[in-house]
Amino acid sequence: MSEVPAVSRRSVLAGAVASGALAVGLGTVASAPALAAPGAAETVTTSERRRLAGQTSMINVPYEEHRTVRVATIGLGNRGRGMTQGWSIVPGCQVTAVCDIRADRAKRVADDLAKAGKPRPAEFGGSADSYAEMLKRDDIDLVYIATPWEFHYKQGKAALLAGKHVIVELPIATQLDELWDLVDTCERTRRHLMLAENCSYGRNELAMLKMAHDGVFGDVTNGHGGYLHDLRALLFSDTYYTDSWRRLWHTRSTASFYPMHGLAPVAAAMDINRGDRMTTLRATATAPKGLADYRERFVPKGHPSWNETYINGDLVTCMIETANGRTIRAEHNVSEPRPYSRINSIAGSRGIFEDYAGNSSTGARIYFEPDHGDDAWRDFESYLKEFDHWLWKKIGDDAANNGGHGGMDYVLQWRTVHLMRAGLVPDIDVYDSAAWCAPVPLSVMSLEHKGKPVEIPDFTRGAWVNLRLGLDSRMTEMPPV
Amino acid sequence: MSEVPAVSRRSVLAGAVASGALAVGLGTVASAPALAAPGAAETVTTSERRRLAGQTSMINVPYEEHRTVRVATIGLGNRGRGMTQGWSIVPGCQVTAVCDIRADRAKRVADDLAKAGKPRPAEFGGSADSYAEMLKRDDIDLVYIATPWEFHYKQGKAALLAGKHVIVELPIATQLDELWDLVDTCERTRRHLMLAENCSYGRNELAMLKMAHDGVFGDVTNGHGGYLHDLRALLFSDTYYTDSWRRLWHTRSTASFYPMHGLAPVAAAMDINRGDRMTTLRATATAPKGLADYRERFVPKGHPSWNETYINGDLVTCMIETANGRTIRAEHNVSEPRPYSRINSIAGSRGIFEDYAGNSSTGARIYFEPDHGDDAWRDFESYLKEFDHWLWKKIGDDAANNGGHGGMDYVLQWRTVHLMRAGLVPDIDVYDSAAWCAPVPLSVMSLEHKGKPVEIPDFTRGAWVNLRLGLDSRMTEMPPV
Repeated sequence: MSEVPAVSRRSVLAGAVASGALAVGLGTVASAPALAAPGAAETVTTSERRRLAGQTSMINVPYEEHRTVRVATIGLGNRGRGMTQGWSIVPGCQVTAVCDIRADRAKRVADDLAKAGKPRPAEFGGSADSYAEMLKRDDIDLVYIATPWEFHYKQGKAALLAGKHVIVELPIATQLDELWDLVDTCERTRRHLMLAENCSYGRNELAMLKMAHDGVFGDVTNGHGGYLHDLRALLFSDTYYTDSWRRLWHTRSTASFYPMHGLAPVAAAMDINRGDRMTTLRATATAPKGLADYRERFVPKGHPSWNETYINGDLVTCMIETANGRTIRAEHNVSEPRPYSRINSIAGSRGIFEDYAGNSSTGARIYFEPDHGDDAWRDFESYLKEFDHWLWKKIGDDAANNGGHGGMDYVLQWRTVHLMRAGLVPDIDVYDSAAWCAPVPLSVMSLEHKGKPVEIPDFTRGAWVNLRLGLDSRMTEMPPV
Repeated sequence: MSEVPAVSRRSVLAGAVASGALAVGLGTVASAPALAAPGAAETVTTSERRRLAGQTSMINVPYEEHRTVRVATIGLGNRGRGMTQGWSIVPGCQVTAVCDIRADRAKRVADDLAKAGKPRPAEFGGSADSYAEMLKRDDIDLVYIATPWEFHYKQGKAALLAGKHVIVELPIATQLDELWDLVDTCERTRRHLMLAENCSYGRNELAMLKMAHDGVFGDVTNGHGGYLHDLRALLFSDTYYTDSWRRLWHTRSTASFYPMHGLAPVAAAMDINRGDRMTTLRATATAPKGLADYRERFVPKGHPSWNETYINGDLVTCMIETANGRTIRAEHNVSEPRPYSRINSIAGSRGIFEDYAGNSSTGARIYFEPDHGDDAWRDFESYLKEFDHWLWKKIGDDAANNGGHGGMDYVLQWRTVHLMRAGLVPDIDVYDSAAWCAPVPLSVMSLEHKGKPVEIPDFTRGAWVNLRLGLDSRMTEMPPV
């Protein structure tokens, strides 16, 4: 069982080394925290956390090998119920326990699995602490968390302390100190916690990553991602988001709530935490118009939402700089009408890829040297075969048949189980997860300072300068299934 | 001869008033300079200029009526030569004088016009000051300037002081104090100076403006524009840009050199200086990679460019905030491979328009309520007829036959001559021109401060709060032609 480094010579030349990652990197680390020294007046500083005694890095730490991966779910709403069914059909995976504050939901999901001929999982529920009971079981290898955002940190940390590996829906936490605490807790417990960033396993996203590593774009200089999803109808639905938890976030804070689906694939293509790192973030927000305008037209007077005031901007944009002089734009907009997009674009000195082009929101287009010199886009479809990631070549058909979100969910779940069974290093570790979620609190800080740049902490504590395996790691052998 | 205000009731409701322009605006003016008071520590301040004795606003000041508009050109390179021919074919316009530091170019253009059966213009040239001689003539109503960027301010000011109206290629100036001086000089000389912003007269741009004013997008909250044009081959050509002037800018400064083609149409659709104003700008720049990479592959050793170091970022992004809580993203990239785009997008609480979509770089797409609710883009082409601007309905065919850049040049020139002949208020005044060019020096300031937000001065000195005619002004009568 072995995996060969994904970082091709071309990508090393085109990427980190050519653009001075090591030099810049070491320099940065030497004077950590990153930008605190000369430019302090220009940027809002955030402090690095020292690694305490009893902690060591989780970078390149493999999972122990598992014959079967036993999964327990916390949170069985729309997402949790669907993903739990997803775990249950992955070869070598068994759902052994399920939990929701509403006991009836635990029973419903247990029934689902039993009906499907799977072993009936243990049920937990009835109180806000039911998950703590579940975590005492010794037949759980991986805890999957799909509760509302505000519970992710507390439940994720509890699962680590219970000795389980953890996979958490977006975001893993919403505060900077919580993100650091999850990093530290992983380093103490020697357990992995990862963001359930399904879009990082999207077919176009993984092809984009492969192209970047193959040097198709030359020196990658900029990338663009977003979560542009008109959720207005769901946000005002009385049944979709339990207790309207997601709409209420728009009454509470001004932030980029959920940029990771657009940010993470771009960050991966730039080898963030693997030769480059994100150093500063500045946020811009529009006035909030969309939700109030929707309510005015479509929500009956007397509905509880009429007591709410929406304060988050409709479009919140984070402009992010990296140590190697790249920029990433990450957008968030869930409250204005538009076809769905994650933007998903990467560009450099030799070419560019743009997803969600054309009038079918799913079209992608590409242009790169030396093949193209005529200022005309090419439809990406004809190139997908050449750059398709091995995961999609291998399980793309299963994914299409089994997975939500066009199969991304299944690929995420299949690969996570595969890594744990084979005893490999995670594609996405706690450092990646913390970096991708940091824009949530950092956008709050930047907006509180009128859009002033805010330092992005280095959760790897200097290890980001090293090239290492990540999402495009290649596999030479399959584990027994 | 009269024009009716373009600002429909719907746009007033959807735009300025609903979003609090008057309130915000007056508040802002009362505490001018805009953000200097509380947020000073967060933003780089720029000072407002007081209006001196002997100056009064040029806002809503009409041109005197001209039977014939007599044009003189300074700068007869690629752009100047083509546009001079363009002026000569506009009904009611005559080119009376032409000037270039190279006398042979003046002769060549005079020959062009004579050959075309037009009156032969007077020729000036041979020295860097030849234009000053030309400006002494009394048969010039409008001076058109198409020299390299570094000469625009000096020549534009000289033309104003000579009592001529002026139209200047992008930018009208590159320094903040120069922009203010052009505003002040217009207010003293009672002459208009406008940016030759041809893209503001583009067919899709004017349709986008009309849709915004008709309320199609509801409350407009964000817009995106850019100048994304792979100029590498031209920048390294020894003949295209005289003395390689444009490439040399990339060795001199780190800035968004030329964002106006993308910014101006979005600013117009947001009624900037007509109910809203741009208040802050923050810039981000990538490392410079594109030009050196191109030179390495395609420019012979020994070429003078091998002595140059390129310091400007390939992609420079300006994030701009407005007084009414809107955001504008303006991008500039001329040094990496990609199909041409100005992005040209506007969005709000009821819909969105995006240009340059699809795999033909010219496609545009749209989605708006209540017509569309299915999360699917519509091809804009089928809506162009409904929202086509009167200028394109009237002279679109002539433009297509006569104009460069798909007819935009002809529409710009035809409309400018029309406004001067009819004695109307300019569509684009010196305040608009200064605001649209301000990102050039402001991006330098922001990048020098690590991307900290920089105040955008209010060149209208408070008058921006008033709704008034602009680019979409409608005409009820035609002047005699």
